[in-house]
Amino acid sequence: MKRLSETKVQKNNKEHFTIIEEKSVIFGEGHFTVIAGPCALESEEIAIKTARAVEHIGAKVFRCSLFKPRTSPYTYQGYGIDGVKLLQLLHTETNLLLETEVLSTDHLDTLAYEADILRIGSRNMDNYELLKAVGKTNKPIILKRNMSATLEEFLLAAEYILSVGNDKVILCERGIRTFENYTRNTLDILAVPALKELTHLPVIVDPSHSTGKRSLVPAASKAALAAGADGLLIEVHPDPLRSYSDGQQSLDLLEFEKLMKELSEMANLLGKKSFSTVLS
Amino acid sequence: MKRLSETKVQKNNKEHFTIIEEKSVIFGEGHFTVIAGPCALESEEIAIKTARAVEHIGAKVFRCSLFKPRTSPYTYQGYGIDGVKLLQLLHTETNLLLETEVLSTDHLDTLAYEADILRIGSRNMDNYELLKAVGKTNKPIILKRNMSATLEEFLLAAEYILSVGNDKVILCERGIRTFENYTRNTLDILAVPALKELTHLPVIVDPSHSTGKRSLVPAASKAALAAGADGLLIEVHPDPLRSYSDGQQSLDLLEFEKLMKELSEMANLLGKKSFSTVLS
Amino acid sequence: MKRLSETKVQKNNKEHFTIIEEKSVIFGEGHFTVIAGPCALESEEIAIKTARAVEHIGAKVFRCSLFKPRTSPYTYQGYGIDGVKLLQLLHTETNLLLETEVLSTDHLDTLAYEADILRIGSRNMDNYELLKAVGKTNKPIILKRNMSATLEEFLLAAEYILSVGNDKVILCERGIRTFENYTRNTLDILAVPALKELTHLPVIVDPSHSTGKRSLVPAASKAALAAGADGLLIEVHPDPLRSYSDGQQSLDLLEFEKLMKELSEMANLLGKKSFSTVLS
Amino acid sequence: MKRLSETKVQKNNKEHFTIIEEKSVIFGEGHFTVIAGPCALESEEIAIKTARAVEHIGAKVFRCSLFKPRTSPYTYQGYGIDGVKLLQLLHTETNLLLETEVLSTDHLDTLAYEADILRIGSRNMDNYELLKAVGKTNKPIILKRNMSATLEEFLLAAEYILSVGNDKVILCERGIRTFENYTRNTLDILAVPALKELTHLPVIVDPSHSTGKRSLVPAASKAALAAGADGLLIEVHPDPLRSYSDGQQSLDLLEFEKLMKELSEMANLLGKKSFSTVLS
Repeated sequence: MKRLSETKVQKNNKEHFTIIEEKSVIFGEGHFTVIAGPCALESEEIAIKTARAVEHIGAKVFRCSLFKPRTSPYTYQGYGIDGVKLLQLLHTETNLLLETEVLSTDHLDTLAYEADILRIGSRNMDNYELLKAVGKTNKPIILKRNMSATLEEFLLAAEYILSVGNDKVILCERGIRTFENYTRNTLDILAVPALKELTHLPVIVDPSHSTGKRSLVPAASKAALAAGADGLLIEVHPDPLRSYSDGQQSLDLLEFEKLMKELSEMANLLGKKSFSTVLS
Repeated sequence: MKRLSETKVQKNNKEHFTIIEEKSVIFGEGHFTVIAGPCALESEEIAIKTARAVEHIGAKVFRCSLFKPRTSPYTYQGYGIDGVKLLQLLHTETNLLLETEVLSTDHLDTLAYEADILRIGSRNMDNYELLKAVGKTNKPIILKRNMSATLEEFLLAAEYILSVGNDKVILCERGIRTFENYTRNTLDILAVPALKELTHLPVIVDPSHSTGKRSLVPAASKAALAAGADGLLIEVHPDPLRSYSDGQQSLDLLEFEKLMKELSEMANLLGKKSFSTVLS
Repeated sequence: MKRLSETKVQKNNKEHFTIIEEKSVIFGEGHFTVIAGPCALESEEIAIKTARAVEHIGAKVFRCSLFKPRTSPYTYQGYGIDGVKLLQLLHTETNLLLETEVLSTDHLDTLAYEADILRIGSRNMDNYELLKAVGKTNKPIILKRNMSATLEEFLLAAEYILSVGNDKVILCERGIRTFENYTRNTLDILAVPALKELTHLPVIVDPSHSTGKRSLVPAASKAALAAGADGLLIEVHPDPLRSYSDGQQSLDLLEFEKLMKELSEMANLLGKKSFSTVLS
Repeated sequence: MKRLSETKVQKNNKEHFTIIEEKSVIFGEGHFTVIAGPCALESEEIAIKTARAVEHIGAKVFRCSLFKPRTSPYTYQGYGIDGVKLLQLLHTETNLLLETEVLSTDHLDTLAYEADILRIGSRNMDNYELLKAVGKTNKPIILKRNMSATLEEFLLAAEYILSVGNDKVILCERGIRTFENYTRNTLDILAVPALKELTHLPVIVDPSHSTGKRSLVPAASKAALAAGADGLLIEVHPDPLRSYSDGQQSLDLLEFEKLMKELSEMANLLGKKSFSTVLS
């Protein structure tokens, strides 16, 4: 049995910035790309309505989670794998790319077939079996930082994906756990420029889970752009207060439209080569 | 689609203390049971040698991990599933119960067949698919607290196992992540009496991962007993400095023997009905 | 003896935004004001040189600390109270307002006489005797958040100043202590919009102590502006690597000039009524 | 101006264990000494009653705080300096040593004259002016760890006292701030053996502030003794629910008596050369 050396981050070594292009949507340095949608899919009707609206407002990728990992087994657990029909429908009805969370290797093939971008949630950042499995697909992978992971651990988790051949990894800062409890988590905004120093991979921010409060999402989003992030993963729902989960942190459509306009102007000032809205 | 209410901890509600008895080994209030062994299995020779020694010293359960989830993909990943042959051998050579970590549903059936007690590691505390899967076995499950989980989240993770029918859950405090870096983690010693207030389940402590330093393991172990823990999950290796992983936090056999003697006396003073050594 | 009720934040209750104007320099909602200077004064020569440079570049307030509270008693402790001569000299040589840290009530009268703005450092946020003492001056007070203070505790510390009559308090987010160690502290960027929801007081950010790394200071500064901060307290040194303290987190003059230009453009886009550079 | 080198902990270097003896009360390795009393003095009547009771039960030192630093300026702030008359009275009425908190240099002379042991609270661990001032007295100083201080910072704060000539410093672990909120703070129990490795100074534990819950104080106290602490600083009140502050974490007299008996037996088993109760 060979004992491997304690070699640290290898594939993350930075020589250039990785630009990930998937069906004309770009993630990487110099670009700013917004993924938007509800926390978890709830019904065909809401899904289609929200998707059309966020597409109209300028998002290029739709967040559509079939599974909702929940702290309690007694709360809404998501649509389930039957929801893949919804993914097919959304592809028919819109031009949006579809981004969805993979919770276990059992559903990986199905989801990798129907969705355009796969997400590993923060709870699974250390689920190395799952990381290696998505590393064998050819889909872009959004890897969310575990809420207690250091940046080094975050990069080493990415390494599990990179080391088996998939180099289309997008890192997502989503807040870390601290003593502060006014916000749901503490957005570690400096993780963005720090990761830009440490790795070539695109870095995006989830302003919804990091704040846990709708009122703080616009500030978090603008701070992310100003700090150098390459995009956002943001929760939008046509009627947040009636959503099954995370309603208190979802923007409604008007709020999202206003934010996108502000971000677009700031992206322009900051010299971004593309913003979600101008790619179409 | 039925929306479940936000009901919180249900199966953990405390009316009595759960006593788990597995082949004459007892986990629960009033007892103190020690699980000992190397961080991860490395060879047949070391495994047998260590198992016989810890059995002789008084442990009743042997820690024998076939898989070693590692932060880096480039470090030793453990023996792998082929190691089940070692479990069979250990059952032949000793009277110890065998405790092993389950990393994914793929190996669950095999491990549940060969091992006596299954462990969910801290990285998988939020891996709900895996929790539900072990909840369908009839084996005692040691559930380790995630290093950033609150006690409520820890109990809700246990709830995933309890709610599908397996009520033999043993909670294991193993240190939380804080700013302090002299120790690898911060042993949350008061989690022990706090959990005793909140749940009927047995509570044990991992003094090895919580400290990360051999020199602090005896103090952590004695503090755990004094604080009301029902047992320990402790790393012991005949030659810690040559172990493939976690050598700096493993006790050698002499240190383990000395500690067991001290714990035995303290358990006696504290009125424990059984201590590992006196059960045989 | 009267027992006061557990009344919480009173003076911070928000009806309007407080605008603090001191000799034509404005702190408050809608404005963006930069305080810049070395971590601690080291010599007359460096002080004058740096002050003239930051004034030329556009800062309106000079950070000039006579005392440097240090974790170790064996490291450089600052210029000491004799440095007040330097404050007088700086007032003669420049038009900058002078901002300085107060460490104890012993020097308060002298410092309040010579300086324009007083600072309570993060280590003293809970030094209630000192808070009440500066509350009896009529100077603007920059109150830095303790690195383990919740927002509520931060506001209650401000309350100690407000409740004795001084309502010119400027809150300064400077990073909180978390497990992450790539940065010196974790900049809690969402404290900015959160405080804006909770209080009428101006909120500024210290991008130097929160990052601890020169390379991250620009991103932190821009994120602060984008998140709604009313200004910055930033370390600038003509030769950071030779500074007695905190050199690794100080910008040099060229870096500061570049940053001020970028911030100015962003402040303009965001509709700020004044930026440091356009107030003169 | 001489620039001191970045020399770290010097006076804490361990060659032997420091034993502090003050009027026949001993703090140091091999001994276990209990300081008990209310959170803050409230009235002559309660003070005398509590002091006599804790003396009878076996404590050798009485906690008698005249000042109560509070997060909010609108809550009970303590008896004030007039309370020194109470210290005189307590000295007349009991044989207890008196331990009291020093909040500022203003009252230092008075308190050092009347009290036997001075305490620096956790909020003042970084108040270097105060540390140097108590370092010039010849009283034993209990230095409480700041809730976000690393062990190195804690030792360097002690160094401020030691370096000016007072080597009678007693370190007190009182809980650190983490994300866990079931307990008021997280008792860092391993700080005890870790400090024993790093320094020669006595180490005690405050089981009251670290837990914030009466029900957890006995477990915290026993864990402290088992982990190697040299004593406790514990809140006891004859009628906790009516105390002005911290009632929810104070033991009543019966609970304290029961705990002292259990600790005494455990101290005996652990080979302590003296326990509070057997010193008289």
